[in-house]
Amino acid sequence: MTTSASSRSQKDKFTFGLWTVGWQARDPFGDATRAPLDPVEAVHKLSELGAYGVTFHDDDLIPFGSDDKARDACIARFQKALAETGMKVPMVTTNLFTHPVFKDGGFTSNDRSVRRYALRKVMRNLDLAAQLGAHTYVFWGGREGAEYDGSKCVQTALDRFREGMNLLTTYCKDKGYDLRFAIEPKPNEPRGDILLPTIGHALAFIDTLEHKEMVGLNPEVGHEQMAGLNFVHGIAQALWHKKLFHIDLNGQRGIKYDQDLVFGHGDLLNAFFLVDLLESAGYEGPRHFDYKPSRTEDYEGVWASAAANMRTYRLLRERAEKFRQDPEVQAARKASGWDELAQPTLGAGEDYKALLADKSAYEDFDADRVAQRGFAFVRLNQLAVDHLLGSR
Amino acid sequence: MTTSASSRSQKDKFTFGLWTVGWQARDPFGDATRAPLDPVEAVHKLSELGAYGVTFHDDDLIPFGSDDKARDACIARFQKALAETGMKVPMVTTNLFTHPVFKDGGFTSNDRSVRRYALRKVMRNLDLAAQLGAHTYVFWGGREGAEYDGSKCVQTALDRFREGMNLLTTYCKDKGYDLRFAIEPKPNEPRGDILLPTIGHALAFIDTLEHKEMVGLNPEVGHEQMAGLNFVHGIAQALWHKKLFHIDLNGQRGIKYDQDLVFGHGDLLNAFFLVDLLESAGYEGPRHFDYKPSRTEDYEGVWASAAANMRTYRLLRERAEKFRQDPEVQAARKASGWDELAQPTLGAGEDYKALLADKSAYEDFDADRVAQRGFAFVRLNQLAVDHLLGSR
Amino acid sequence: MTTSASSRSQKDKFTFGLWTVGWQARDPFGDATRAPLDPVEAVHKLSELGAYGVTFHDDDLIPFGSDDKARDACIARFQKALAETGMKVPMVTTNLFTHPVFKDGGFTSNDRSVRRYALRKVMRNLDLAAQLGAHTYVFWGGREGAEYDGSKCVQTALDRFREGMNLLTTYCKDKGYDLRFAIEPKPNEPRGDILLPTIGHALAFIDTLEHKEMVGLNPEVGHEQMAGLNFVHGIAQALWHKKLFHIDLNGQRGIKYDQDLVFGHGDLLNAFFLVDLLESAGYEGPRHFDYKPSRTEDYEGVWASAAANMRTYRLLRERAEKFRQDPEVQAARKASGWDELAQPTLGAGEDYKALLADKSAYEDFDADRVAQRGFAFVRLNQLAVDHLLGSR
Amino acid sequence: MTTSASSRSQKDKFTFGLWTVGWQARDPFGDATRAPLDPVEAVHKLSELGAYGVTFHDDDLIPFGSDDKARDACIARFQKALAETGMKVPMVTTNLFTHPVFKDGGFTSNDRSVRRYALRKVMRNLDLAAQLGAHTYVFWGGREGAEYDGSKCVQTALDRFREGMNLLTTYCKDKGYDLRFAIEPKPNEPRGDILLPTIGHALAFIDTLEHKEMVGLNPEVGHEQMAGLNFVHGIAQALWHKKLFHIDLNGQRGIKYDQDLVFGHGDLLNAFFLVDLLESAGYEGPRHFDYKPSRTEDYEGVWASAAANMRTYRLLRERAEKFRQDPEVQAARKASGWDELAQPTLGAGEDYKALLADKSAYEDFDADRVAQRGFAFVRLNQLAVDHLLGSR
Repeated sequence: MTTSASSRSQKDKFTFGLWTVGWQARDPFGDATRAPLDPVEAVHKLSELGAYGVTFHDDDLIPFGSDDKARDACIARFQKALAETGMKVPMVTTNLFTHPVFKDGGFTSNDRSVRRYALRKVMRNLDLAAQLGAHTYVFWGGREGAEYDGSKCVQTALDRFREGMNLLTTYCKDKGYDLRFAIEPKPNEPRGDILLPTIGHALAFIDTLEHKEMVGLNPEVGHEQMAGLNFVHGIAQALWHKKLFHIDLNGQRGIKYDQDLVFGHGDLLNAFFLVDLLESAGYEGPRHFDYKPSRTEDYEGVWASAAANMRTYRLLRERAEKFRQDPEVQAARKASGWDELAQPTLGAGEDYKALLADKSAYEDFDADRVAQRGFAFVRLNQLAVDHLLGSR
Repeated sequence: MTTSASSRSQKDKFTFGLWTVGWQARDPFGDATRAPLDPVEAVHKLSELGAYGVTFHDDDLIPFGSDDKARDACIARFQKALAETGMKVPMVTTNLFTHPVFKDGGFTSNDRSVRRYALRKVMRNLDLAAQLGAHTYVFWGGREGAEYDGSKCVQTALDRFREGMNLLTTYCKDKGYDLRFAIEPKPNEPRGDILLPTIGHALAFIDTLEHKEMVGLNPEVGHEQMAGLNFVHGIAQALWHKKLFHIDLNGQRGIKYDQDLVFGHGDLLNAFFLVDLLESAGYEGPRHFDYKPSRTEDYEGVWASAAANMRTYRLLRERAEKFRQDPEVQAARKASGWDELAQPTLGAGEDYKALLADKSAYEDFDADRVAQRGFAFVRLNQLAVDHLLGSR
Repeated sequence: MTTSASSRSQKDKFTFGLWTVGWQARDPFGDATRAPLDPVEAVHKLSELGAYGVTFHDDDLIPFGSDDKARDACIARFQKALAETGMKVPMVTTNLFTHPVFKDGGFTSNDRSVRRYALRKVMRNLDLAAQLGAHTYVFWGGREGAEYDGSKCVQTALDRFREGMNLLTTYCKDKGYDLRFAIEPKPNEPRGDILLPTIGHALAFIDTLEHKEMVGLNPEVGHEQMAGLNFVHGIAQALWHKKLFHIDLNGQRGIKYDQDLVFGHGDLLNAFFLVDLLESAGYEGPRHFDYKPSRTEDYEGVWASAAANMRTYRLLRERAEKFRQDPEVQAARKASGWDELAQPTLGAGEDYKALLADKSAYEDFDADRVAQRGFAFVRLNQLAVDHLLGSR
Repeated sequence: MTTSASSRSQKDKFTFGLWTVGWQARDPFGDATRAPLDPVEAVHKLSELGAYGVTFHDDDLIPFGSDDKARDACIARFQKALAETGMKVPMVTTNLFTHPVFKDGGFTSNDRSVRRYALRKVMRNLDLAAQLGAHTYVFWGGREGAEYDGSKCVQTALDRFREGMNLLTTYCKDKGYDLRFAIEPKPNEPRGDILLPTIGHALAFIDTLEHKEMVGLNPEVGHEQMAGLNFVHGIAQALWHKKLFHIDLNGQRGIKYDQDLVFGHGDLLNAFFLVDLLESAGYEGPRHFDYKPSRTEDYEGVWASAAANMRTYRLLRERAEKFRQDPEVQAARKASGWDELAQPTLGAGEDYKALLADKSAYEDFDADRVAQRGFAFVRLNQLAVDHLLGSR
């Protein structure tokens, strides 16, 4: 299932976090099942499999607490691997969750010294992100939250969150970094409730920021699905706000712990419509796989799982293209009123006064008659199932 | 458990929808178990129980399809009851979900004629709301959504939703109505996925509206909990955005169908912290109970359930006041860093350059040592449990 | 997508409840969107579409409260339709949930007179089921439950449930009816919590019955998925207990209200493995679709949705057959230890003493070395995705 | 909040796992925040707080891979602590989940050598359990499961599970150990889907075992609630089957990752009714707290959280006793038909023939009239809320 480097097209833009293939498979009830993976090996191997680039948290590349010399050596080895493979680093992020010091959060820890430290840790890594040519910097506030409703004043915590984001956007602007920020929402785990739990909450928060034009979203399939929310709807709203700066693709099987399965190994129909949306809406960012190779797998399984992500995406893209081009689908969409929804509710130049004057809109409107219209949504969905199954 | 009218204080501001006590208990698998309730009787009975006011959908008061004469008669009888009891109508809303014509939505139906009809239906009822002195007009878009990801372009649907809201705010402004709009989010049911599924998504949407200052939220306990979200966190974020215009109180037992139980008959600890938040944050709007008396109850049970909502709220308010005033709680909060979070992360006048220059913030920061701090959140939560249980 | 009657094979055994295509689409927030459907028309139409038979609740066929004459007329018309089409009635069931009298349950209502009435209602319909040649009688206790933990002593309620089941099995045995009972579990909706909420709880209950050999299960896809449980696992356990007497196929999109979508329009990967299991485990009962045509559909959409259920099942069966026969899949299964699991843990004739004596099993067992084995489950799953997508 | 040893009554029987207070707070996204806790210190400290005993997995007491000498030393130190404090060890269990060798399970791993090793590991620890006077041996099969529906034949896996249980019960019987087994169900985490996911599934499984009288359940609050199931209902069914051998008390806030909060810090109303059930049904086993002190806590917080579990249980027991004794509650229960449910549906000596002959049961039954009865469940629930809040 591997792909030669030459087929690594701009179109695909498949990227992987170092922490994905490098996950050692330690879970809440079990020890690591895999040896550590050298980031350099990850770069080479992912390149061979046809990926476009890699991403990382600071601590994935440079062990927490490294001194400057050790840090520089890590970076140099990594850059060499990038140069040898042509792999890109489109996105970088900060680890503000593993070390115990972040147990009550980074930007919103009740401990002020932790908040200051967190900001410094981010700034240091922003420099590296800019140096490596990244264009997106992700903020996953996995520890910003609480288990108990009385632990924290949420309004105050949001003040601190905003304070941190404002400082960091200012820093980047002053430095001239060509970086946009992308907030990654998650409802819970590892905290009982995480701040900015969904795409919506994060979008609303962004609107309050000083340099809000610099800040968008990095939604993750499983994170929205952990709240039972429709990921396609969420991405559509993010696109509508022009805030889909980056995306994390993976698989989740319903409302439970964060599974981080291979893309498509969860809700496959939703994945199909997601790819359809991304491809037809002109999303041009990376297709970033933020998944975990299952704990049962050895490294052969790790690489098979990395390849599976890309293979499934490509298959779904093919199926979605054929779906959109199928005349029967287009006719079914038309019958369902898909196009009619694109027509404004008011006519050209019409205002509420004109609407009030239109008796056909209310006084003469026969609700019972209009109610008889069938929308034929089931038929349209079955056409999608048919296409997804490759049976048309 | 009843309360004399004289005790109906401004402070309580307990209100009920006509559709709550008037719910005939028809459910997806069963027929009505209660006879219809005359809105006039509802007003009198709720007044006797100590409520401050009532709210309604147009069709609760005036049967769908009534002609003008019948409509006027309904309104006149209702106003008489209000006058007799002193009950207020602080909020009014529109039914855009019961009639089959709305089966694919009101503002976002794929059928354009339905969208136009929906806007007219709202405008007509806005006039009545203004006439009755309401200050809040709620929009629950329960039918704005889809069962299938291919039924509707969500971006286009949001365009239509915004178009509708813009028209209606303009209408109210032109008319000089002293009304604010409040959007009520819900993740699903009756549609598979509803647009603007959470407090966050609705907040983000509002930010795109023409007269966004006029539009806020009417969050409902059970609706957020149906997505597994923490209602206290959601309300706190709504308050932070200054968008808590109204609130729907009820009970829900986890992620399942919409239960609309009595307030407090769901997640009681969360209800305690909710009341604590509302009371301490200075929320001054109605405490609106949007619940359904269980299908097993006769009218005696209906009125007992109405009283139970108010009784539980008052009990929780009492407990929360004592909780906040308990010196041991205050000390425990302090120990947990509650106050420390209110302190800005940057010092007065400090900017990122000063932070970068502060070696104690990073270079000399001993993460392992600071990590040893215990936040004592469990103790604080147990104090809340103690207060809630009336055992302190 | 229709199928001629001649292709209505024994193999397919597709059946539909009269209440499925006949659902008028009344939901908790909306009125009916479709006119009533004559059962006779349902039989003819489903026959044309290629179904094998129909099923019904007493009240689907004979309006509640009909006198004997009206009842006989309903039955006669129905039997005529069966005779004309060759359609079978493999299963019948009782409606103990729609009428308000059942608001606190049938067999476990706190009202004893209701319990007695419920038993009589079932007995009367058992006679009809036997007369029509049904072999399975389903018990869905949708109203047996509670909203509040103090409403009912669950142990006592289970006593009453058992009392009822024992009476009814005795009745059938005495009458010589060739009927087996099948309990249909559901976790909630329309009650807050329903008794016997999952496949497991019902299996355990059955083991306490007088004629337990006569009683098995009728699991429904969506019902288990409403509890976040894996339906394939549930069906496998039911088969293991030899208690899969009947099955309800439909679609559900996660933990929320009961959606009753078309089979495959929910978790498609799980549906694929379900069909694989049913076909390979030799399940010979009906493939019964218990779904609801969406409320947005007119009757054209109803029939399209009925056809969609059967089409999806057939497609999945095709895909699953190819999956099982693919040599690469068989090799991958072998590599994953699928076959090794079938080998007993003890050798032939081995007992615990022999196991204790086997030093290779413990004293000389190198846990760290054995732990290195990769199970290659991801690769196997991707092969399933490939087959499901028709890409192999 | 501490209690002198003298108050450590038989009545309370509060026990804690060594792994609870000893949890170092490593989670899927973070490193340990607390130093290891010496089991001897745990015994002394819990004794001071008023606990009745402790429980453990083999590896909690004896590090995995210890040789016999090290093992004996661990046991001796532990026994000394028990002797010094008078603490009991009512339950012991095996760790078949932490070491990577168990990544695909213990009794049902696809690797046969792992299955053999797992049985040996259990047998070894059964000897220790018997030696320490434990009467219950718990089986939590947290790794028995799968992420993918094609990884494992569930029927075959259940064969292996049963094979293992049969071998182990035989072993105990032969050895004359006074031990009963208790299976602990869980729906998911750390596996995507775990075998025997709920109380019901485990009960059904037990019925197939060779020495089923020796095998019962150890249900855990959070595990059932992770599937959205009502824990009180589950415990009631377990009691009904006479299979509640042990219980794990903790707190969970809805359907999400396994939180293991302090008992009562989740669904408080359900916890109230649980205590009411346990106390009134005569459950005499330990009240075992299987919780995790939050990751934000230091050791002071750990001990505060341990005390909080016991305090909350005692408070709820007090409240429940007053609730049951309140004449108004008793009257309300009677009005709701609580007692009527205890009356058999058939009269003394009545059989189905007599029921068929009773016209009042069907022919003369006025369903519409009987349907008017209100069950007054909301009032009863509000009385429970009142008692829980200490306001009566």
